[in-house]
Amino acid sequence: MSHANAPFSQAEYQRRLAKTRAAMARAGLDAIFVTDPSNQAWLTGYDGWSFYVHQGVILTMEGEPIWWGRYMDMMGGRRTCWMQHDNILGYADHFVQSTDVHPMQDLAVHFKARGLDKARIGVEMENYYYSAKANSVLVAEMPDAEFQDATALVNWQRLVKSDDEIAFIRKAARITDKVVRTAIDRAAPGVRKNDLVADIMHAGITGIGDDWGDYPAIVPLTPSGLDATAAHLTWNGAPMREGEATFFELSGCYRRYHAPLSRTVFLGQPPDDMLRAEEAQLEGIAAGLEAARAGNRTCDIANAFMSVLEKHGIERSGRMGYPVGLSYPPDWGERTASIRSEDETVLEPGMVFHFMPALWMESWGLETTETILIRDTGAAEPLCSIDRKLFVKT
Amino acid sequence: MSHANAPFSQAEYQRRLAKTRAAMARAGLDAIFVTDPSNQAWLTGYDGWSFYVHQGVILTMEGEPIWWGRYMDMMGGRRTCWMQHDNILGYADHFVQSTDVHPMQDLAVHFKARGLDKARIGVEMENYYYSAKANSVLVAEMPDAEFQDATALVNWQRLVKSDDEIAFIRKAARITDKVVRTAIDRAAPGVRKNDLVADIMHAGITGIGDDWGDYPAIVPLTPSGLDATAAHLTWNGAPMREGEATFFELSGCYRRYHAPLSRTVFLGQPPDDMLRAEEAQLEGIAAGLEAARAGNRTCDIANAFMSVLEKHGIERSGRMGYPVGLSYPPDWGERTASIRSEDETVLEPGMVFHFMPALWMESWGLETTETILIRDTGAAEPLCSIDRKLFVKT
Repeated sequence: MSHANAPFSQAEYQRRLAKTRAAMARAGLDAIFVTDPSNQAWLTGYDGWSFYVHQGVILTMEGEPIWWGRYMDMMGGRRTCWMQHDNILGYADHFVQSTDVHPMQDLAVHFKARGLDKARIGVEMENYYYSAKANSVLVAEMPDAEFQDATALVNWQRLVKSDDEIAFIRKAARITDKVVRTAIDRAAPGVRKNDLVADIMHAGITGIGDDWGDYPAIVPLTPSGLDATAAHLTWNGAPMREGEATFFELSGCYRRYHAPLSRTVFLGQPPDDMLRAEEAQLEGIAAGLEAARAGNRTCDIANAFMSVLEKHGIERSGRMGYPVGLSYPPDWGERTASIRSEDETVLEPGMVFHFMPALWMESWGLETTETILIRDTGAAEPLCSIDRKLFVKT
Repeated sequence: MSHANAPFSQAEYQRRLAKTRAAMARAGLDAIFVTDPSNQAWLTGYDGWSFYVHQGVILTMEGEPIWWGRYMDMMGGRRTCWMQHDNILGYADHFVQSTDVHPMQDLAVHFKARGLDKARIGVEMENYYYSAKANSVLVAEMPDAEFQDATALVNWQRLVKSDDEIAFIRKAARITDKVVRTAIDRAAPGVRKNDLVADIMHAGITGIGDDWGDYPAIVPLTPSGLDATAAHLTWNGAPMREGEATFFELSGCYRRYHAPLSRTVFLGQPPDDMLRAEEAQLEGIAAGLEAARAGNRTCDIANAFMSVLEKHGIERSGRMGYPVGLSYPPDWGERTASIRSEDETVLEPGMVFHFMPALWMESWGLETTETILIRDTGAAEPLCSIDRKLFVKT
């Protein structure tokens, strides 16, 4: 076992494997093929920007996981995974983006060589990195295997974080504090948005002391004015203007772990309806944090928030949060539970959510959010330490 | 038509629609559903970090394209697309990451409402943002439609760039020069890699004058020493060391257009085998540029490079380049032609490639690459202006 660069102890990886195998047993699976880069990293330590070609992890009920990818990325696997090099496999370069052959043909050979040609195999049908084509080729290559949808099977095992993982998220949260503070301090009329984003990124990647900054799974979202009525615009080169609100949705990243936070900055005097919305939002967040305790459900958080907003005469439905931790682009959410009224996931200590009750109104947006840790007892702990309010700069 | 924020003229979008429809006609398609974010942006101007949920563009043989996505991102569509707001559609939030319902059910309603229930519809079977699940739901919802694989149909229309696009790529190349220059100047023993990456990102996003920097579709790849034997490692917090090579694979980005470039920096005296490889690589690149001319084929570039390397006793096979232009994560390549010996795409003026004949050896990596423009006559034009060599800093 090399383990030179994998970020966690062997005990932590064994914990993850045991947990995942228990879920596989419950699902009646002999093996899973995991394409989500976050799941790959969580199981094996693999870390590289190579998910734009087909790659994944084979996990059976025994032995080490097997990382499989492009030959040149196998070298990256040797540098970052904890497994023996025999369990890090590479396929030839002519498979890459070919219309004649497909990497899944190579993968099928490895499945068969391990006696899995008639196995029950779980695949992540709903994942960015498992294309419709990949599935059709793999199924055709293995006519005797039984494929099942195992979307989010591994993701659900990631929901409750270990102490080691929480320590990483706390480091990410310190970096988040730094980047959000940078955004708030630098925001001023006339400052070009891209120059501000450059400072935000610089602050995040320099990190704090020995805790160097990694790339967040989502780039800074920093829209102003009418652009802030939309949820996911990035930035441009326009200067910030008096009389506009800008929301900053940002995260520090420590070794792929995240702690997102949003704050809104208003340059000048905010309109009355925004100030009223701020009051309702802050009261609603406080109610949500109180409801975010072990034994309650995700919907209780959403309902606590919404009932406060309703009292203030503001309508807000939809999803208002999701678990966070280890992630790769394009999403820093874990895609399992959601903080919304339809979701009844029971909260347990060690779960970490981005509680995200943003308000996107007709002429402005107001994002004030927290990354929160579910504790053994009591209300959830917000992991960042930036004041929770609308920042008004006059 | 709003067109407030879309980056190109109406004539340019009409050119793109006409080209795409001609390809649809050749493929016998009535409609396509485009999920590749780059294709969406190329056709409609849509620009937001929302591709982590299902969204896409419906294009039929007549009228404006239709952008379809999550309701909150429809607001972003109104801010960035050139079409009328009637042609920007949003689905309800309870579809997001639900296990009970799927956004493709909403999409099918729109297809049917437009009389496309029996249409021949092209879908991008091999794309990050069209999952195996999305395909299976859409096909099940529209039993009378005939689905065809239209992977890369739009991407191929993007291969020859318009003058407007080349102007954008030239702006990106100026930003690339700035970021690569920053990397080379800052590299020194003891400098932490993440601090250097922070400076690289800062340089790129501040941009040059009015040409503000956008986020590149791939984060900086900056591995040193043994890590540089792998192709796609990013960075960590370790200090750079005397006696090691570090390659920098970087791109500036101007309004989603890219011009990637790699250079390698050696701190100290490089080993002889690296210097010999450098000589071969530079001679090979020069030969490749000579072969990269209109009327020749992509394989001619690869073969020209490889025959020089062979002469020097170095084996290098595999893919060594791809077209670049408009891109979103996780890849800045266009995923159509490849510069490799199996690929016979005929070169035309206006094509832009990242010519990428990197050498990953047993104990080091040497990346020297160019973004090149195929000209009307003569050898290809390298678009960046950083000296083409191994940078030795003693």
